[in-house]
Amino acid sequence: MSFNIYAASVPLFVNSLTDMRAWLDKAAAEKDETALMEARLAPDMRPLPAQYQMASDTAKNALARLTGTDAPSMPDTEASFAELRDRCDRTIAYLRSFDASALDGAEDREVVLKFPNGMGYRWQGAAYLTGFALPNFYFHTTTAYAILRNAGVALGKPDFLQHLGPPNLDA
Amino acid sequence: MSFNIYAASVPLFVNSLTDMRAWLDKAAAEKDETALMEARLAPDMRPLPAQYQMASDTAKNALARLTGTDAPSMPDTEASFAELRDRCDRTIAYLRSFDASALDGAEDREVVLKFPNGMGYRWQGAAYLTGFALPNFYFHTTTAYAILRNAGVALGKPDFLQHLGPPNLDA
Repeated sequence: MSFNIYAASVPLFVNSLTDMRAWLDKAAAEKDETALMEARLAPDMRPLPAQYQMASDTAKNALARLTGTDAPSMPDTEASFAELRDRCDRTIAYLRSFDASALDGAEDREVVLKFPNGMGYRWQGAAYLTGFALPNFYFHTTTAYAILRNAGVALGKPDFLQHLGPPNLDA
Repeated sequence: MSFNIYAASVPLFVNSLTDMRAWLDKAAAEKDETALMEARLAPDMRPLPAQYQMASDTAKNALARLTGTDAPSMPDTEASFAELRDRCDRTIAYLRSFDASALDGAEDREVVLKFPNGMGYRWQGAAYLTGFALPNFYFHTTTAYAILRNAGVALGKPDFLQHLGPPNLDA
């Protein structure tokens, strides 16, 4: 088994977006969807849908930047769980369009991230992935989970790590 | 620049533990430390100190398992911000004791994680790192951040990504 920048990006993003998609099913079965769509952890933090949108953006922009291509535009218009599920599905489908060879040399590719004020960061691809894309992606996945937990949805760590599947070691 | 399992583990853990350490300084300046030590997001979620302890455990156990060595024991006795800072420091010092060559071949090393009930997972090192250690680590770093934000501490994304330093592109 080899290790490369593909192994540290695409599967991680797909795993957690799949997990996040499943949390919506549990949440919808337990709580009022309309209220959850506005739930947030602090008045100056973004609500649940924005956490899904920013997780999606972070993942798809990472693959676009690491391959020097353009990510599909996904306007942040999702207004229901059904639309958030679809956002997860479209992001996952885009991520799955890359194979490992598409990221050959991505660790050395120059990545530039500019903020609206014109300032920003220039990285090599590996530093961009590990310094920015991965922590920022998990920030939004975990914040989505935290919002749902804080709102009383009965999720647990097995939901956060649902991609692991059942234990493969028996007692 | 090459990419390997070291580049996807030690620097990420050190970065975020350093960030987490700094959040405590902001929190102490703004809010009551005793109350924050008991803050949590949901009645059945662990409080702030446990999030620090589990981030520390996930990082140090990852390096131990990936290198086939033993991590230093750190009983979860921290009862103040000063002790949580020290936990961060000791974990960071342990992580920094590894260089990239210590992880040569770690992607193929068998990693076994057993739960108290005897069930568990067997992975190759790369799958363990990307499927379990990284998401679980960021789960606890982000949950610590979320607890502080939910309690009214004025943190922002630049605190979560403080390891990036100031922008290196000017307007």
